[in-house]
Amino acid sequence: MKIVSAREFDLKREVEYGTPEQNETVRRIVSDIRREGDAALLRYTEQLDRTKLTASELRVPQEELQAAYAAVEPSFVTAIRQAAANIRSFHEKQKRNSWMDWQPDGSLLGQVIRPLKRVGVYVPGGKAAYPSSVLMNVIPAQVAGVPEIVLVTPPSTNGGEGINPYILVAAAEAGVSEMYRVGGAQAIAALAYGTESIAPVDKICGPGNIYVALAKREVYGAVDIDSIAGPSEIVVLADDTANPVYVAADLLSQAEHDEMASAILVTTSAVLAEAVQAEVQQQLDVLPRRDIAAASVEQYGAIIVVDSIDEGIDVVNRLAPEHLEIMVQEPMAYAGRIENAGAIFLGPYSSEPVGDYFAGPNHIIPTNGTARFSSPVDVDDFIKKSSLIYYSKEALLQNGAAIIELARHEGFEGHARAIAVRLEQEGKAESDNG
Amino acid sequence: MKIVSAREFDLKREVEYGTPEQNETVRRIVSDIRREGDAALLRYTEQLDRTKLTASELRVPQEELQAAYAAVEPSFVTAIRQAAANIRSFHEKQKRNSWMDWQPDGSLLGQVIRPLKRVGVYVPGGKAAYPSSVLMNVIPAQVAGVPEIVLVTPPSTNGGEGINPYILVAAAEAGVSEMYRVGGAQAIAALAYGTESIAPVDKICGPGNIYVALAKREVYGAVDIDSIAGPSEIVVLADDTANPVYVAADLLSQAEHDEMASAILVTTSAVLAEAVQAEVQQQLDVLPRRDIAAASVEQYGAIIVVDSIDEGIDVVNRLAPEHLEIMVQEPMAYAGRIENAGAIFLGPYSSEPVGDYFAGPNHIIPTNGTARFSSPVDVDDFIKKSSLIYYSKEALLQNGAAIIELARHEGFEGHARAIAVRLEQEGKAESDNG
Repeated sequence: MKIVSAREFDLKREVEYGTPEQNETVRRIVSDIRREGDAALLRYTEQLDRTKLTASELRVPQEELQAAYAAVEPSFVTAIRQAAANIRSFHEKQKRNSWMDWQPDGSLLGQVIRPLKRVGVYVPGGKAAYPSSVLMNVIPAQVAGVPEIVLVTPPSTNGGEGINPYILVAAAEAGVSEMYRVGGAQAIAALAYGTESIAPVDKICGPGNIYVALAKREVYGAVDIDSIAGPSEIVVLADDTANPVYVAADLLSQAEHDEMASAILVTTSAVLAEAVQAEVQQQLDVLPRRDIAAASVEQYGAIIVVDSIDEGIDVVNRLAPEHLEIMVQEPMAYAGRIENAGAIFLGPYSSEPVGDYFAGPNHIIPTNGTARFSSPVDVDDFIKKSSLIYYSKEALLQNGAAIIELARHEGFEGHARAIAVRLEQEGKAESDNG
Repeated sequence: MKIVSAREFDLKREVEYGTPEQNETVRRIVSDIRREGDAALLRYTEQLDRTKLTASELRVPQEELQAAYAAVEPSFVTAIRQAAANIRSFHEKQKRNSWMDWQPDGSLLGQVIRPLKRVGVYVPGGKAAYPSSVLMNVIPAQVAGVPEIVLVTPPSTNGGEGINPYILVAAAEAGVSEMYRVGGAQAIAALAYGTESIAPVDKICGPGNIYVALAKREVYGAVDIDSIAGPSEIVVLADDTANPVYVAADLLSQAEHDEMASAILVTTSAVLAEAVQAEVQQQLDVLPRRDIAAASVEQYGAIIVVDSIDEGIDVVNRLAPEHLEIMVQEPMAYAGRIENAGAIFLGPYSSEPVGDYFAGPNHIIPTNGTARFSSPVDVDDFIKKSSLIYYSKEALLQNGAAIIELARHEGFEGHARAIAVRLEQEGKAESDNG
């Protein structure tokens, strides 16, 4: 892991958005599903997932979720149940009420806040099937009050062993009642436009491979989508009080995600820098995913030595990392100066995996510098707002002239007249009464 | 305006997303600005806006904003000032606080809510320059606490008369202090990537022509963008107590926007249906923008007669209109059953222009059925959230095993070890002390 100055370091990762061929494939699949419904969905499932299903087999029966409990360790159930409770509790605190504001003239203004009606969650198959992602996508929607949450996941990787039981248990714990064994771009299209077997949703979220990501982009507009995750990153901001063993372990926990992940230490201490450099090498040697982690550290990892915590904070704000750990003597004293970071972990015991799996805040966090303008997934992602305007007669008579003035300046005489006809009729009624 | 049943009606408007040539042009402009900065910006401004500027002339001096007050009617200033105060007051009520939650084990979880740092607002030139749009984009950002709000607008349509003074006054009233005379895709690129004269922003919003819309889509990811507005619509839900003159005037105020706008009456009353049909024709004949409004009414307008208010509400929820007016005997009794509508106007005096210009809620509202899953612009569009996690030693010792369990099930041994090294060292320290 190279040691550099703040000036020398620039994190540039060019993200791949799919080849023209991949885009073409996805457009064809989406259009076929839209036109042919179940027939195309079953055909692509056979062709791409090598699983021959009938329409009635698409839906995963509730008993299959329950049966999965027998296939997983009780300690897993206990752990996922605790995690789910923590995630639910944190997201409950984000709930908001509709509000109204009565004006002195009898008018009412407000915002009505409602859950989306139906949300689809994509869960990848195979090795990328993560129970924790099921919780992190489903629970915020559920807390928001979304009445229908639908999971889709590929039938299996080799056409035999069925859906990963850990995923089924996570789905059951999260409270999912509707689940289909379809994956890929065809699943996204089915969720967006509906088929005979799957009713269309209002929003699609959840991670997936490049075909899933391209399909989400393709259907955006017909439905809402979550943001498409880029490569992930951690920045650790540390002084000489930090434990190099912890710092190195946390950097590697990010680096093992994928080769484009980035793990960066920003430190005021040259001593810590060297100690972490040595520790990373030592821990890397015995890590099961060492090839991935080594490639990540090599290409996108760095140890940046800064002159002061202030300079370190500037570096952090410029990088706008997905995850930031602050391991300095008094971390709370600096948290308030972090402008850009998706999740901020404070002190020696707040290792990133605490947030990835367990503490409660969402682990779906803006990546690749987008924390500058976006936020971790939360309950707000599953609600919609309507403005409410009840204008009293008094309010209209009082303000009608100003509204007409503004409409005419924009050349919208029709707008002006909608007000003017009321002022005429009601003003006249007023004088008739008066 | 045709009278139809609910079953017969389907609102389909295919929205144009730009020709391949337009997309190509925009990509070239964005890439040139990104590479060459001011030089390309000035070149495109000369070429496309026929205005030759030097870099130092790009910024509109504060005195020019002040001078504009002399060029507009005092009644306009009064009206826009009242509107700005109402908009500010409504949006103030949307502000949210960061929150923290201390756990019994000494841990702290929370959400930090911060304004974006720098936002760019596009204001179209020429006839599409709407002072009300300036207020509706700038004020929510300002209320959110965004410290730097930058306006860009084309220098002028014919290279002579300068920026519309009504826009300048609206900008001054909204409190904008930084403004540049650049427009089109080149302005969007300059905001996204920055040039020598214009610092880059975190988010770009505001309406524009197809080149502006395509450029926003092109730079999305480097910055956030607002949603790209589709064709606009109004639905009026009315019973036999509604005044057909008001209903017709409100339908036309929407229809005059553009030919793709849609104005729809949903009513339980066949008598009202015919009266509104006649009124629309009569008012249309004397409307300055009658060609546009007539084309809209002809293609996308309808009067839908329903058997009951319940059926009417179903139609509304299916259409998910941008604007909904409820003109029935007791409108509040039905507002709670509207699931999908961007803005809901209640009763005979809440004509749509009340909301377009004046009452306070935002007039930038999801169009073309997207109210199913999205919301009017508000303060939330200009904030970002960071999760905050401070785990105590006690919390880690207590929950570490569960975190390790979950990480190992996902094959992330590096994550598990980041927790395990702490349990070893701290657990050991515990027993050393004990």
